[in-house]
Amino acid sequence: MRHFLTLKDFSKAEIMEMIDLAFELKRDQKAGKIRHELANQTLAMIFEKSSTRTRVSFEVGMYQLGGHALFLSSKDIQLGRGEPMKDTARVVSRMVDMVMIRTFSQEGLEEFAKYSKVPVINGLTDLYHPVQLMADLMTLIEHGKDQNPTIAYIGDGNNMTHSWMWLVAKMGWTLNIASPVGYEADDVVQRETLSLAAQTGAKITFFHNPKEAIRDVDVVTTDTWISMGQEEEKAKRVEDFAGFIVDEELMRLAKEDAIFLHCLPAYRGYEVSEAVFEKHADTIFEEAENRLHAQKGIMVYLDRQRS
Amino acid sequence: MRHFLTLKDFSKAEIMEMIDLAFELKRDQKAGKIRHELANQTLAMIFEKSSTRTRVSFEVGMYQLGGHALFLSSKDIQLGRGEPMKDTARVVSRMVDMVMIRTFSQEGLEEFAKYSKVPVINGLTDLYHPVQLMADLMTLIEHGKDQNPTIAYIGDGNNMTHSWMWLVAKMGWTLNIASPVGYEADDVVQRETLSLAAQTGAKITFFHNPKEAIRDVDVVTTDTWISMGQEEEKAKRVEDFAGFIVDEELMRLAKEDAIFLHCLPAYRGYEVSEAVFEKHADTIFEEAENRLHAQKGIMVYLDRQRS
Amino acid sequence: MRHFLTLKDFSKAEIMEMIDLAFELKRDQKAGKIRHELANQTLAMIFEKSSTRTRVSFEVGMYQLGGHALFLSSKDIQLGRGEPMKDTARVVSRMVDMVMIRTFSQEGLEEFAKYSKVPVINGLTDLYHPVQLMADLMTLIEHGKDQNPTIAYIGDGNNMTHSWMWLVAKMGWTLNIASPVGYEADDVVQRETLSLAAQTGAKITFFHNPKEAIRDVDVVTTDTWISMGQEEEKAKRVEDFAGFIVDEELMRLAKEDAIFLHCLPAYRGYEVSEAVFEKHADTIFEEAENRLHAQKGIMVYLDRQRS
Repeated sequence: MRHFLTLKDFSKAEIMEMIDLAFELKRDQKAGKIRHELANQTLAMIFEKSSTRTRVSFEVGMYQLGGHALFLSSKDIQLGRGEPMKDTARVVSRMVDMVMIRTFSQEGLEEFAKYSKVPVINGLTDLYHPVQLMADLMTLIEHGKDQNPTIAYIGDGNNMTHSWMWLVAKMGWTLNIASPVGYEADDVVQRETLSLAAQTGAKITFFHNPKEAIRDVDVVTTDTWISMGQEEEKAKRVEDFAGFIVDEELMRLAKEDAIFLHCLPAYRGYEVSEAVFEKHADTIFEEAENRLHAQKGIMVYLDRQRS
Repeated sequence: MRHFLTLKDFSKAEIMEMIDLAFELKRDQKAGKIRHELANQTLAMIFEKSSTRTRVSFEVGMYQLGGHALFLSSKDIQLGRGEPMKDTARVVSRMVDMVMIRTFSQEGLEEFAKYSKVPVINGLTDLYHPVQLMADLMTLIEHGKDQNPTIAYIGDGNNMTHSWMWLVAKMGWTLNIASPVGYEADDVVQRETLSLAAQTGAKITFFHNPKEAIRDVDVVTTDTWISMGQEEEKAKRVEDFAGFIVDEELMRLAKEDAIFLHCLPAYRGYEVSEAVFEKHADTIFEEAENRLHAQKGIMVYLDRQRS
Repeated sequence: MRHFLTLKDFSKAEIMEMIDLAFELKRDQKAGKIRHELANQTLAMIFEKSSTRTRVSFEVGMYQLGGHALFLSSKDIQLGRGEPMKDTARVVSRMVDMVMIRTFSQEGLEEFAKYSKVPVINGLTDLYHPVQLMADLMTLIEHGKDQNPTIAYIGDGNNMTHSWMWLVAKMGWTLNIASPVGYEADDVVQRETLSLAAQTGAKITFFHNPKEAIRDVDVVTTDTWISMGQEEEKAKRVEDFAGFIVDEELMRLAKEDAIFLHCLPAYRGYEVSEAVFEKHADTIFEEAENRLHAQKGIMVYLDRQRS
């Protein structure tokens, strides 16, 4: 039995096996071909923080595969607070066939997986967002950007950054990361991915100037860095991220046919301009839809590993 | 592809086509005949405000049609706040087959529909409540009150009033609306429905005295006008709506066999007396159940329009 | 038509009929045999207070039986507050096939059942927790502890205590209850169950000293008595329940092969020690899983009673 907690745990071949499965399921769905491979199975979706895309894509995906997804919010279940993580894992995993968790701590997720009798999927943690990267990889392939591409990640060194680092290190590609001072990617993830990159031929380079990072790349991506509701923190970040907005001026430095990805939600005028966002909207919403297909591929893959 | 955003958008013939479909689905369900016409389809139910009846009727209806409904509350999805309405519409409508929205602003709903790739249903807005009127129309027909009836709406000029105005204008019926001064129906809706009424022979008349409005009518209806939780506003409204309670004395002025409808929840002692409510309880709860059947009719109709 | 509101309403033979059904369904599920006996049926799950186990077990159980469960939280539905209980019962029970309620007041639950057109199941009230006892009974049988066992309940005289009293009174078994002064079981439940015990040969005895209650018993059980969030009340209870922790020292007084049950969540260091909990973890999580099977048995039983 395997879990899907981070891309780190999967080889390039395994990642591509899941991606191939995802494309197959996407084609079949578009063709109206029913694929009830998880019939009579249930997926517990545990959300410590709400997330539209993760919620809709997993629940619809499970239904399309013939199964049923249960939505458990932090109101319904108190991971590691009211009850120790290991107890919740032992109870829930005796009743369902698979678990998806969107939580804060990667350690908490791993503790849950350790005690779970069924496969666990990382729906998003503070450290990693591997299901998004699987959708992004599908989108790169659909746009022909998977032949040794150079990718620029502009912005906050966060869970998206870390997952890009693992993907690129596994694939042997090139990644330029531009973050303001103080917002760099996690040290441990840097060390581990650079060590893998040395073996696979991947190049991961860190910048503080977005203009340097974006020059001649095939793919540009970013992520939100503002904290809604925390107005003081937001004001500080607006200052710190000055110059890091992906706007038409910045995009002009990338290759002419560069695509732009965004995992959403997008805050126009902060990490991306309205013009860049809407120019690339078709790609961005295809990328969002690929969450559905990528996750169906992951679930079917994990189910097959089990038997 | 069509949306169901307001009765205004549908002809009398189209309304009756949906109603006929709803009756057919109701009969089949009572007879235990499975109608999985929306098999393998998903409905996103987006609730900015909770609503028992809307929730249960759509979720059960979708299941009875062989599909699956996702419940997305304002905790799970932040329509037009965390994310622009157009982005949510573009993401969600790529993953599901139909969307039901219970929101505040009719403009917001229409913005969502504009960007949606799939049919959108109005589950209730501040301006309109068209699915309730479809259930009410079924109930009128079941009670033989659809032969040019006179209907009295007693109370607040709100989304229910506006939807009654459109229904009556389309059907060519007679509607008496009695509201306290300051609580009259929306000006634009008045203008538009009176203009249509002039063509269809409908009569829509406005009163400030409920006794005049209710005299000799076939159907009496009302809706809550109190704001739970807002105690100051509530006290003011209790004063403003003095004399507008539908009690046995007022009902005596209607036809002897007049039926009483209420879209629920009912606040006894405010817009309706306990005695009138319980005397007409069978009709009222049949009306509530008709939400289920009416909405199944609407969903199947919209699905057929698509193909 | 029957409801499942308390064990009091069922004979020993009826309880065993439901248990046999539960075991049959458990065996079939483990063997991968599909049992869609509630196909096309819907269960409304109304939660006034959240509960992981109740939620997951009912939703998964309904799905495994071929039906669909709707999760209605107190955010979505306001039992007896926004709307009279009798109205909610009349609306909801016209749209679904069965209702499960997790609420506070047993009277409220019974009011709902009185107005419901479909079977109602008690998912937990302040007075009773009968579905948990059905799972516990399955666990006793699986461990061969159903031959006239002696059971010790150590702790707060609450809904679990009351349900144990009814189960033991029905079965003719022996129950020792040890509670601190001021935390004894409800007077009315004491009177009623002792009266039944006199007929069935059951023995229900009350203690204030846990050491006396636990001596030579076959089964030990407890339940949480701390109130998370209410720090003052918690401090008082920690003092009042001194000596009532089920730890290895206390367990040594029970029979050597005694099993330990806990309905969860467990608060280590309060009602049970970490060592006792983890030693008996397999039994406890099997007991938790039996919620799923027991409730499937109850639902199928109630459905058969209907037709």
